[in-house]
Amino acid sequence: MQIAVVLFDRFTALDAVGPYEMLVRLPGAETVLVAERPGPVGNDAGSLTLTADRSLADVPRPDVVVVPGGPGQSAQMDNEVLLDWLRAADAASTWTTSVCTGSLLLAAAGLLRGRRATSHWLALGHLERYGAEATEERVVTDGKYVTAAGVSSGIDMGLTLLGRLAGDDHARAVQLLTEYDPRPPYDAGSPRKAPAHLVEEMRAKSRFILT
Amino acid sequence: MQIAVVLFDRFTALDAVGPYEMLVRLPGAETVLVAERPGPVGNDAGSLTLTADRSLADVPRPDVVVVPGGPGQSAQMDNEVLLDWLRAADAASTWTTSVCTGSLLLAAAGLLRGRRATSHWLALGHLERYGAEATEERVVTDGKYVTAAGVSSGIDMGLTLLGRLAGDDHARAVQLLTEYDPRPPYDAGSPRKAPAHLVEEMRAKSRFILT
Repeated sequence: MQIAVVLFDRFTALDAVGPYEMLVRLPGAETVLVAERPGPVGNDAGSLTLTADRSLADVPRPDVVVVPGGPGQSAQMDNEVLLDWLRAADAASTWTTSVCTGSLLLAAAGLLRGRRATSHWLALGHLERYGAEATEERVVTDGKYVTAAGVSSGIDMGLTLLGRLAGDDHARAVQLLTEYDPRPPYDAGSPRKAPAHLVEEMRAKSRFILT
Repeated sequence: MQIAVVLFDRFTALDAVGPYEMLVRLPGAETVLVAERPGPVGNDAGSLTLTADRSLADVPRPDVVVVPGGPGQSAQMDNEVLLDWLRAADAASTWTTSVCTGSLLLAAAGLLRGRRATSHWLALGHLERYGAEATEERVVTDGKYVTAAGVSSGIDMGLTLLGRLAGDDHARAVQLLTEYDPRPPYDAGSPRKAPAHLVEEMRAKSRFILT
């Protein structure tokens, strides 16, 4: 089994590394970071660089596709090299998945039409423009499509997917090994829970970011 | 303010990227990935490479030190270049922090003697050998030392630290932006919650890993 995590300029690091860390321990699987061109790929903050070991062209038929999000997603929405790869990879994949605004890339490739899906809470409206049925759930499975909400939700998505790929016991073992027993010091992780002024501030800023 | 995340061969990716993602949005702060030598650093699984932008020597006095863990920690326990750097950086730091077995490196540098601290649940006994008072809490703050339990707990640690550095409101904003409202699909993230056979299997294996 081959798992491909797709990188692009200005991706969000945790979007990619969260599900990576859950899935990489799948017995007998190869996990590979891919990008349009192999080599260093910088994140949204400009202070973290991951290496894409192989090009998209070199990994044409992964069993599992993981597409992270991040501010750099906007610039990829009309990148036909990436979108064509997503369509072709999806045609052969067992699972096609995303984290955060990665789902907008799946949607732009036409893969989420008529499907229930999620994204970063600030991007749910954009998802609907591409014909997906946007939901506020943290991890949404519709057929072979598994989409996650913002950034950190990729960990929950990765663990959910791992359970489907390797069974509940293996997923529980990885949860134990990575000590994923979260205890956030605040309770502001969703627009329903965060103080209203923070939600409003972020919505106002996002008008300039998400287009 | 300068935040240094320390990389070493065979670190665990999420240990580093979890707190990185929480701390990188601190206004006016520079976050830098450092290693003994600048350049690519491979993770424990061998399929992910992060770039260290600067050498330890180039970043002698960060305000915040973050030391991740991972299987590669063992090989660093007598790396005097790293341990000397940790001691010197700690002498000037505002916060000295770790995730997972990163606390064993702080302990080996002599920084946790007599202090309450934590580590990956499989490594708590080792922590005590270096004179720390090991506890099973997820995030432990003792003076300027903040240590986190295994792998994913670095996210909770990063968010806790962010609250201390920038205030509760900023930390809540980052929690909202990264949609950190965790909902693991299983409840096996600590040895108290996981099925006993998984805990036992992991303890048995760890005898060969943690030395």
